[in-house]
Amino acid sequence: MSLPVTNLDPAFRVTRASHVVLTVRDLAVSKRFYTEVLGLILSAEDHDALYLRGIEEACHHSVVLRQSAAPACVRIGMRMLTEADLEKGKAFFESNGCPAAWVEVPHQGRTLHVSDPVGTPLEFCATMPVMPRMITRFSAHKGGCGQRIDHYQILTPDVGKACTFYMEAGFRLSEYMAPKGTKSTNDLRGVFLQRKGNPHDIVFFNGAGPRLHHVAFLAPEVHHLLRACDTAGELGYGFEVERGPGRHGPGHAMYVYFRDPDGHRVELFNTHYQIMDIENEPVGWDPSDHTVSHPWGMPARQTWFHEATIFEGVPVHEPVMKPSPMTLEKFLAKAPAGA
Amino acid sequence: MSLPVTNLDPAFRVTRASHVVLTVRDLAVSKRFYTEVLGLILSAEDHDALYLRGIEEACHHSVVLRQSAAPACVRIGMRMLTEADLEKGKAFFESNGCPAAWVEVPHQGRTLHVSDPVGTPLEFCATMPVMPRMITRFSAHKGGCGQRIDHYQILTPDVGKACTFYMEAGFRLSEYMAPKGTKSTNDLRGVFLQRKGNPHDIVFFNGAGPRLHHVAFLAPEVHHLLRACDTAGELGYGFEVERGPGRHGPGHAMYVYFRDPDGHRVELFNTHYQIMDIENEPVGWDPSDHTVSHPWGMPARQTWFHEATIFEGVPVHEPVMKPSPMTLEKFLAKAPAGA
Amino acid sequence: MSLPVTNLDPAFRVTRASHVVLTVRDLAVSKRFYTEVLGLILSAEDHDALYLRGIEEACHHSVVLRQSAAPACVRIGMRMLTEADLEKGKAFFESNGCPAAWVEVPHQGRTLHVSDPVGTPLEFCATMPVMPRMITRFSAHKGGCGQRIDHYQILTPDVGKACTFYMEAGFRLSEYMAPKGTKSTNDLRGVFLQRKGNPHDIVFFNGAGPRLHHVAFLAPEVHHLLRACDTAGELGYGFEVERGPGRHGPGHAMYVYFRDPDGHRVELFNTHYQIMDIENEPVGWDPSDHTVSHPWGMPARQTWFHEATIFEGVPVHEPVMKPSPMTLEKFLAKAPAGA
Amino acid sequence: MSLPVTNLDPAFRVTRASHVVLTVRDLAVSKRFYTEVLGLILSAEDHDALYLRGIEEACHHSVVLRQSAAPACVRIGMRMLTEADLEKGKAFFESNGCPAAWVEVPHQGRTLHVSDPVGTPLEFCATMPVMPRMITRFSAHKGGCGQRIDHYQILTPDVGKACTFYMEAGFRLSEYMAPKGTKSTNDLRGVFLQRKGNPHDIVFFNGAGPRLHHVAFLAPEVHHLLRACDTAGELGYGFEVERGPGRHGPGHAMYVYFRDPDGHRVELFNTHYQIMDIENEPVGWDPSDHTVSHPWGMPARQTWFHEATIFEGVPVHEPVMKPSPMTLEKFLAKAPAGA
Repeated sequence: MSLPVTNLDPAFRVTRASHVVLTVRDLAVSKRFYTEVLGLILSAEDHDALYLRGIEEACHHSVVLRQSAAPACVRIGMRMLTEADLEKGKAFFESNGCPAAWVEVPHQGRTLHVSDPVGTPLEFCATMPVMPRMITRFSAHKGGCGQRIDHYQILTPDVGKACTFYMEAGFRLSEYMAPKGTKSTNDLRGVFLQRKGNPHDIVFFNGAGPRLHHVAFLAPEVHHLLRACDTAGELGYGFEVERGPGRHGPGHAMYVYFRDPDGHRVELFNTHYQIMDIENEPVGWDPSDHTVSHPWGMPARQTWFHEATIFEGVPVHEPVMKPSPMTLEKFLAKAPAGA
Repeated sequence: MSLPVTNLDPAFRVTRASHVVLTVRDLAVSKRFYTEVLGLILSAEDHDALYLRGIEEACHHSVVLRQSAAPACVRIGMRMLTEADLEKGKAFFESNGCPAAWVEVPHQGRTLHVSDPVGTPLEFCATMPVMPRMITRFSAHKGGCGQRIDHYQILTPDVGKACTFYMEAGFRLSEYMAPKGTKSTNDLRGVFLQRKGNPHDIVFFNGAGPRLHHVAFLAPEVHHLLRACDTAGELGYGFEVERGPGRHGPGHAMYVYFRDPDGHRVELFNTHYQIMDIENEPVGWDPSDHTVSHPWGMPARQTWFHEATIFEGVPVHEPVMKPSPMTLEKFLAKAPAGA
Repeated sequence: MSLPVTNLDPAFRVTRASHVVLTVRDLAVSKRFYTEVLGLILSAEDHDALYLRGIEEACHHSVVLRQSAAPACVRIGMRMLTEADLEKGKAFFESNGCPAAWVEVPHQGRTLHVSDPVGTPLEFCATMPVMPRMITRFSAHKGGCGQRIDHYQILTPDVGKACTFYMEAGFRLSEYMAPKGTKSTNDLRGVFLQRKGNPHDIVFFNGAGPRLHHVAFLAPEVHHLLRACDTAGELGYGFEVERGPGRHGPGHAMYVYFRDPDGHRVELFNTHYQIMDIENEPVGWDPSDHTVSHPWGMPARQTWFHEATIFEGVPVHEPVMKPSPMTLEKFLAKAPAGA
Repeated sequence: MSLPVTNLDPAFRVTRASHVVLTVRDLAVSKRFYTEVLGLILSAEDHDALYLRGIEEACHHSVVLRQSAAPACVRIGMRMLTEADLEKGKAFFESNGCPAAWVEVPHQGRTLHVSDPVGTPLEFCATMPVMPRMITRFSAHKGGCGQRIDHYQILTPDVGKACTFYMEAGFRLSEYMAPKGTKSTNDLRGVFLQRKGNPHDIVFFNGAGPRLHHVAFLAPEVHHLLRACDTAGELGYGFEVERGPGRHGPGHAMYVYFRDPDGHRVELFNTHYQIMDIENEPVGWDPSDHTVSHPWGMPARQTWFHEATIFEGVPVHEPVMKPSPMTLEKFLAKAPAGA
């Protein structure tokens, strides 16, 4: 398949996915969920916002929750290496027809707001206040021990366009989904793009969008994934374990997906492989291969495929190719007895 | 609820669930599944049978697989402490109208065949040849590291009768399922009976029977449950992960249920609590309480509830009270979006 | 080797090691250690005592800590099945020249105090008040998640006498240490005796005694052993990790030994094998075999071998055979560079 | 303390520590150790060399073992991003007085040999043949499941010089050891330098050198560290577990150090924190702080501090400041009873 090519000398250096800004209806309820079930650490709170970080994170926050009557994702955040990179990045986005603006944001350095070509609202900064890493404050570890933010998954009707743009911005393609035999980037169903050296910082999948499918946090070990589930059950969030624990085909991680009290989807997963060497061609997967979508057990239920968080104020467009995944519902309907 | 009472001075001493005898269509296929996925150790094999044990077991076998065109369970095995107990046990069964007979069985000491009052074919012995415990032969540990056999679950239309009989035989009732407010042993939907000091050696649940719902093996740690799933997927048994990984309400263990290549159901689960003190009243659960049937995640699919292994040559009777569990299929049909 | 024989039909039924009574200098300090590092649950406290239990225990307590200026072990506790067993046990001890007396003890049923033939002060009861099992109260699990009490190790100059007596009382010998070629019970260096079906409820090793070498608690998984160490380090008890993590030869468990703030030694270990069948001959080990004493890594330091807790008011006798174990100190002195 | 500054726009891009070349006396013995105990995958072998990689590595090798009568380290390898970087890197080394030369090396792309200013022999390349990632080939996972190479630790008499040079080459300083109150880079006792976004690719510690103290591999979870130890014991390498399992102060990882059959030291450790943001000032540690050198348990034995692998043909120089660490031997000599 003919794939876009990474610009290995981009004009600016994005370093990593760094923080997500969500709105929630009840900060107290969300605080309990994010600290007890996911195990994030509360960095700061004021009357209308919570700032949380993973147990190993020295940055001020990787999750910002703001009170609102209408739950949504405000922006997804990424880091650039220096403030000089922010300047160059602004020029790059503008030259690609993406509006960009400097803004003031609490608890982070100079911040740039942009929208990417498929409409995803982004926020870049180069610094945040430093907080203590809590990785060896064992007595403060709870639930899933959310360790650090890792990546976002975005639904969009235009996966190919997103892929081409981000690769020009220096992102590398680690894995992709496309039906066997297709040749055009228009046929891409999913792309895993990365800057930080593991399989993904941002993933785009075909679907009505732009919408935030999930934000993912690393958990230290697989037993922490299970403890997150167990704590969810204990604290009354048992139905919010939407999918898993299970094993991914692409990326190979063990995962669990939760819906937070406002329906935002959060993935906890264990360690990913490192990918830094240029000889590693992207791995292509056929979406109809069940060993990819569910190497064991059953597929995800349809809510997992179709429900996602809107971006505040961003219109949603339907895809040309309607997704038709093998859902749990379809699987059960056609499964032979005992299969 | 008025429950039967354990005879604390039974005439004979059953010590534990010890071995299951199953028939399978292809010994080579079953050998791969039981050794690679479940991680059992092959103790012996001949042209028409395999003998397997858990990695910590010093007894010759806890699973016997015999070749047959029609997969079934031949018998479930238990240990009595001494041969004198076998003699007294024989008398007890006969005095309760249960036919009992001495038989010769390879690789085990003097063996008694009986059927219990609900038709379950049992096999008792007091000794087997001793094999090396493989618990510190780490390089031989595979898949789920099946450590030792733990218990059986039997479907029967007459849970109350089974419960009363086994408690007279010295079994203790650790947990039971019954609709809230019921008073009669006829209303029991499930009973967890034990001799060895953890929650169960044999479990009876209401359903068409007698049939073997599953045999369960302890796995050392929760990551071994996941490795069993992962190995199942790797070796082409991904669809045979029928339920889980998940958390039990009763018993509190983390579990995974597999269907072996002939459809026999095997549970791997992690450690159970110890129950030896007489003051521990049995814990009663209401079967309609979802925090019991699935503390987090989704309920079991209907195959898990309704499919089971017949006992060779034993007729199956339908229950008076038709089971109507909350299946995964029902759950998905009624679930509100995103729930 | 000629070993004593278990009386399989003892007059009374001990079921398990159940609780230890220790004195400590500062209850607040001990409470922090036992709840945060070992992860035990506080069942009750009054002005001069703490009562703790493991996370799965439904009995009221498995540890009693009483305030005293002189730290010691008051008694080690075991369960008998019924009060009738207590009566028969009293007769048995008295007929063996061991004084026995009924006493009143808070939070437990009728209680019998006796001393065994080597001077160990014991306490038996058949019931305690029932407390909630905390095994699925995941948010309350801390440090090593001490799950339940498992066994005691006692130093005594007369291992053979202890072994013979306990086997007459129905205990079974799972493993023993004796120099190769020895024939007499007088040559036994260590014996592992059990009633509950795993390798030990009480262990006797040769040494100045009677003294309590350690009390042991099961931890759910090996990562909990490590979390106990990590929490110890975090809370200022890093030097109290006296030995391990390491692997036992006998029993095969992974272990860590802590000294509590008064110097009492507590072992956390993971799961043990089940031993119920009569054909399992005791396993004999040669104490000079390093693959038994330290299958990998280095041997225990001399404090581990020689320091132990006195029993309150019980005189200590020196052994005839002076123990001369391979200590860490000796090992390092003779180790070739890099070995 | 005044520390060197990272050049954030270096002329060439090193991406990561990538492979170590060691000589060993017996390839068959080493193969068993590296594959069974450490769990590395054999990529290729010929009559005088073995090539191994971690279970997640797609590069051809991260360890090369060559047969030789005199065990040594030949070179430590790192990756640069592109061949253009190799060219620029050659110029950089030469302009710093470090000889550099192109060489042909089997199973890797164009390769550059250089020595750094403290004499460490390095090897850079930008590509290797691609091999299958074995991360989901669960049935091939053994022992410690060595996942990927992570870093090297080098002993050198000139830590400050090494630190300054590598930071000019674009390495960032994550942590360092220096006595409290010191001001000069000459007083640095240890520096943790990284390019790939976790705490280290190369570490320099004060000591006679240059010598290779250890090469480190990531293991997936802490139980894999223990399985590596257990497998070492089972296969006759029990004494080769030189230090640990224990917890690092700097870096915070859980570790175990092995000596391979030729005395080369290999560390297995679990996950490290991510460090990419520029606001993260390096963390300074006082080497005399025991909570840093051994947060719990006992310090490392003197062999760990003083023994290391020479680089083939590279003379060793003594440090001006003689290291005087708290060794296990000193600790035991001064420890109060029971401490």
